[in-house]
Amino acid sequence: MNAVNAGSIDAGVVPIENSLDGAINETLDALLQAEDAFICAELVLPVEQLLIAAPGARIEDIVVVMSHPSALAQCRAFLERRLPNARLEAALSTAAAVEAAVRTPGAAAIGTRRAAELAKGAILAEGIQDVAQNKTRFVVLGHADAPPTGDDKTSIAFTTAHDRPGTLIAVLRELSDRGINLTRIESRPSREELGIYVFLIDFQGHRQDAVVAEALTAVRERAHYVRLFGSYPRFVEKAA
Amino acid sequence: MNAVNAGSIDAGVVPIENSLDGAINETLDALLQAEDAFICAELVLPVEQLLIAAPGARIEDIVVVMSHPSALAQCRAFLERRLPNARLEAALSTAAAVEAAVRTPGAAAIGTRRAAELAKGAILAEGIQDVAQNKTRFVVLGHADAPPTGDDKTSIAFTTAHDRPGTLIAVLRELSDRGINLTRIESRPSREELGIYVFLIDFQGHRQDAVVAEALTAVRERAHYVRLFGSYPRFVEKAA
Repeated sequence: MNAVNAGSIDAGVVPIENSLDGAINETLDALLQAEDAFICAELVLPVEQLLIAAPGARIEDIVVVMSHPSALAQCRAFLERRLPNARLEAALSTAAAVEAAVRTPGAAAIGTRRAAELAKGAILAEGIQDVAQNKTRFVVLGHADAPPTGDDKTSIAFTTAHDRPGTLIAVLRELSDRGINLTRIESRPSREELGIYVFLIDFQGHRQDAVVAEALTAVRERAHYVRLFGSYPRFVEKAA
Repeated sequence: MNAVNAGSIDAGVVPIENSLDGAINETLDALLQAEDAFICAELVLPVEQLLIAAPGARIEDIVVVMSHPSALAQCRAFLERRLPNARLEAALSTAAAVEAAVRTPGAAAIGTRRAAELAKGAILAEGIQDVAQNKTRFVVLGHADAPPTGDDKTSIAFTTAHDRPGTLIAVLRELSDRGINLTRIESRPSREELGIYVFLIDFQGHRQDAVVAEALTAVRERAHYVRLFGSYPRFVEKAA
């Protein structure tokens, strides 16, 4: 994201939301900082988690399971059922956890098939996420957003003034009064004061659609600060 | 939270939100599961982060900094300025990180003064969080919520049906149309499908106030599922 923002690469892909673990806060916070990056596409990909260890390891011998906290959270039921006594160890990424586990006797990691291949690890169990339908939504960041296609979404962030608790609802009303569907709302702390938030919302329509353009003008009048991340085609899953 | 929910203890205190790092998702998810636990009070406490290592260690010799990802995030600016080359290592708690760092040459941990005392660690730097005003809001869970005091808050969770994208705004309107101030909104994934959320909201007033009782009845008619966490006195910080 920093490289897109600085102009040194054309595009980057970042995870923004997982169907089991929710918003990826690091992405939301970095997106709020990256003022020259725009969302030009979204994509939704299935996530399969695997239990990976050194070749020859057996699941009975595992005493510690390492992974990114998000991956540990996605596999909570499997861990409670199959490895109730294993110690959980947080790692900064699933890839780093797999590399460390393959080198550590008694350790396993939760990670992807690709990470197992790269680290030459053995797969002890596959599809171990709590819900088979584990999906992550990614956004593609570039130097501009995308032209209208007729089935688009728009993402913005805004803050409300401290002394105006009704602003959030006033902003959302500018959308709903025009028949614009809100598809998502997330809040992040302003980092200034507890109780003051930055809201990130996604809604249907393109910023060049007349009704969306009118709503955005009204939102700018209501909110304290507005940031337009861009408009982009809505991701539609293809039938298998 | 599990012990309160099971009835084996009377009350428990859990962190729910930090002014720099945002919602504590583990708490929100556990609260949604703990159907027999109610919120009976809230409190806001200042958080001071310290850099802690083995006695005799010097900040110049630190090559790895361990802590809970939330504490690492709270001290990002300090780490970039004073320890730009140190490797960051995630731990499941600040207390566990301090214990490990005190035993590991070249390691330091970010944690509290109390953790430093317990682990007999040396303090290399204090007040290292990015913003001096680092605060955490806690809620007290018990078997019932609290009686009205005249300055209360109410917390609920609700879900919206998949095919009714306007439900979130309809629910919030039931509050704003009655002059009830929303103080917070968080969303968590339903864990069923990407794009379907559980919303957790806090608003001013007690569930026994006539206007709040009326709004709650209306919300129950609009939302797919409603969970009342309870009403409790609003925390007011005392002047120093």
